Amino acid sequence: MDKLKLGIIGFGTVGTGVYKTLQNVKEVEVVKIAVKNINKPRQVDLPTSMLTDNPYEIINNPSIDVVVELIGGVNPAKEYIETAIKNGKHIVTANKELLAKFGEELFNLAEEYNRVILYEAAIAGGIPIIMPIKTILAGNKITKIQAILNGTTNYILTKMDSDGASYEDVLKEAQDLGYAETDPTGDVEGFDAAYKITTLSTIAFKTRIKLENVYREGITKVRKEDMAKANELGYKIKLIASATIDENNNADVRVHPMLVSKNSMLAHIDYVTNAVAISGHPIGNIVLSGPGAGEFPTASSVVGDILAIQAEFGKTDYMLPMMRCHHHSKANPVKIEDTFNKYYISITAPNAIGVIAMIGTICANKNISLSSILQKGVSEDNTADITVITERCREKLIREVVAELKDCTVNSIIRVAEGG
Amino acid sequence: MDKLKLGIIGFGTVGTGVYKTLQNVKEVEVVKIAVKNINKPRQVDLPTSMLTDNPYEIINNPSIDVVVELIGGVNPAKEYIETAIKNGKHIVTANKELLAKFGEELFNLAEEYNRVILYEAAIAGGIPIIMPIKTILAGNKITKIQAILNGTTNYILTKMDSDGASYEDVLKEAQDLGYAETDPTGDVEGFDAAYKITTLSTIAFKTRIKLENVYREGITKVRKEDMAKANELGYKIKLIASATIDENNNADVRVHPMLVSKNSMLAHIDYVTNAVAISGHPIGNIVLSGPGAGEFPTASSVVGDILAIQAEFGKTDYMLPMMRCHHHSKANPVKIEDTFNKYYISITAPNAIGVIAMIGTICANKNISLSSILQKGVSEDNTADITVITERCREKLIREVVAELKDCTVNSIIRVAEGG
Repeated sequence: MDKLKLGIIGFGTVGTGVYKTLQNVKEVEVVKIAVKNINKPRQVDLPTSMLTDNPYEIINNPSIDVVVELIGGVNPAKEYIETAIKNGKHIVTANKELLAKFGEELFNLAEEYNRVILYEAAIAGGIPIIMPIKTILAGNKITKIQAILNGTTNYILTKMDSDGASYEDVLKEAQDLGYAETDPTGDVEGFDAAYKITTLSTIAFKTRIKLENVYREGITKVRKEDMAKANELGYKIKLIASATIDENNNADVRVHPMLVSKNSMLAHIDYVTNAVAISGHPIGNIVLSGPGAGEFPTASSVVGDILAIQAEFGKTDYMLPMMRCHHHSKANPVKIEDTFNKYYISITAPNAIGVIAMIGTICANKNISLSSILQKGVSEDNTADITVITERCREKLIREVVAELKDCTVNSIIRVAEGG
Repeated sequence: MDKLKLGIIGFGTVGTGVYKTLQNVKEVEVVKIAVKNINKPRQVDLPTSMLTDNPYEIINNPSIDVVVELIGGVNPAKEYIETAIKNGKHIVTANKELLAKFGEELFNLAEEYNRVILYEAAIAGGIPIIMPIKTILAGNKITKIQAILNGTTNYILTKMDSDGASYEDVLKEAQDLGYAETDPTGDVEGFDAAYKITTLSTIAFKTRIKLENVYREGITKVRKEDMAKANELGYKIKLIASATIDENNNADVRVHPMLVSKNSMLAHIDYVTNAVAISGHPIGNIVLSGPGAGEFPTASSVVGDILAIQAEFGKTDYMLPMMRCHHHSKANPVKIEDTFNKYYISITAPNAIGVIAMIGTICANKNISLSSILQKGVSEDNTADITVITERCREKLIREVVAELKDCTVNSIIRVAEGG
């Protein structure tokens, strides 16, 4: 049997993990690896002839069947993948940003050339999620996803919770340990999770979600006081990537911090672990959890995709029919102002007297019910710290409530996840 | 496009769920359903011509492509499936007992006739587990599984824990609610979980595990006092189906109650939910959880298998290459006496004086370390209740310890799960 011939573009942590893992796979042969710097020392012994600093030695190499793209980012990855597809190659990629921004274009191109693009590693690292949704869960109408898709922010929030530490202090520690980058923006502002939920919800809902319609808030404003208060009320705070779709194809897709009940599985997903909770019919609710990043977990997904191609390569004219992506319908975006949520609101009132009545009245006037209200004494300066959790109400109204609380300081507003 | 034509044998809860779910799947047509009693009222409207009480009207029907077997048990399911394969049909089944007892024989027959047997629904109901292991996780060397695979026993243990109730009381309640059968033996004695872990570990380890080598203990001896004590020590008690394999192909596969740390995901899997924790390389650790039974969750898996066949049907000579099962090597069974575990032991000693010294000496003489020891006062009759958790040691030695504690009453011995 002919081996499946691979070219790998990008040989950082994940690429190295993929190469090591493939050493035990006799059906697959790595032919060429494109790197930035040929002379950089590597963790693995490679014949010099295998390395190149010119990716087109892979992309234009007629003997290569599959291009594994592991450089990330839009440019030049997009051009590499497009040219490779036109040259008849199948693609395995871990590039969440590229898929979120140009997925439709790339999948259409792949269909045109009868090639597949597989990307299990782009979403939730090692957790099996894309292939299960496309295959064994294919009979389902999935209507809701709640997921922890970014290890860096989950690490920071877990440490803030366990140590009672501030965001800034934990971020610094995470940077020192290599869990957060020097410029942490992509993680802490929720871009990474937004890329992932864009593609994940497109696949799960079988209709295209556009990145620009994904509402996004990071974790930089979460205070250690919010963590403590959430705990007291029976919650943890997590950066949740969520997506729901209704029967009229209205999709509400977002990334922001949420209070999640300690009774839910997601509350127990700590440090760099990721998790994806899926609800649909007929399945009900499932939760898949595991390592969201790292050399070996990500390699597990990349190699799984490679083996799926290998299994059918050369045996059929239309390979991996369930793994194709042709979602041409577009979901109707729901604006964040029009979504309904429960809210955690932390307020400092300048004058303790009458403040509860005032908050109660403002909310009542907008038909917003309160499910919890917490005030512990009054400060010496007569200010009062009040924590409220509302019942489900429209975001627009909550923004009006906050505007009307102009005499108070609103320390935090954090949405509260509903359901288990 | 021609529709994929199905015959369903058995039309109870799961069959009904499958039929309802397939109403939305235009690529698949249910041609015939075999039932015991044609005249029994059904939840769904079926044309009379679709029902038969003769399964051979399906098995011998040349227009049927796939036989969905949902009657369970070995006989007559085995004969139905064998004949159907010989007649050129693909098989989708939820029959865990049949696969555990005659899997090898059936898979060999299927290969001989170039047909596939898919069985996602047989293990962990709706949780995607078989297809992920065979496809996206295919690059892994899986070495450990810890799973909650039986909803009835997990329901009973959860209720015993939350209500402080006895096994007998909760069993009765579960029977009244329909969560446990009138004869609960198959569930509470661990047979159901043993069937499932036999097939699951065969697939995961890629070597055949034999049912007769699976050690099995049920939950009938778990006392409410053990539940309380476990809680105090930071554990929950769960019926765990576990499997490990070493580099020499020695497989230790078993079903028995275990103390699991509250820090582990499995401790939070409650009521009828199932979960499968998998460890391997390069993936690391993942946990998949969801509904382990029920009309719709099980239908999700059955329909997923049907759609996998539909996707490739008629398009290739060798369908679903990754889903084939040809594990001809046999694992070496490890006897329970030769396994190493941590143990929870509850002892009532007739005379409080010197008992801790005695237990300590007996264990020390066998080189067994104790990690926790708990005694709370002495009873009025001078007896003492003592709870011990040992460090990892050989089962054979623990049995000797128990024999030497002949002056005490050993109330319970329960193994303790290690790791997260």
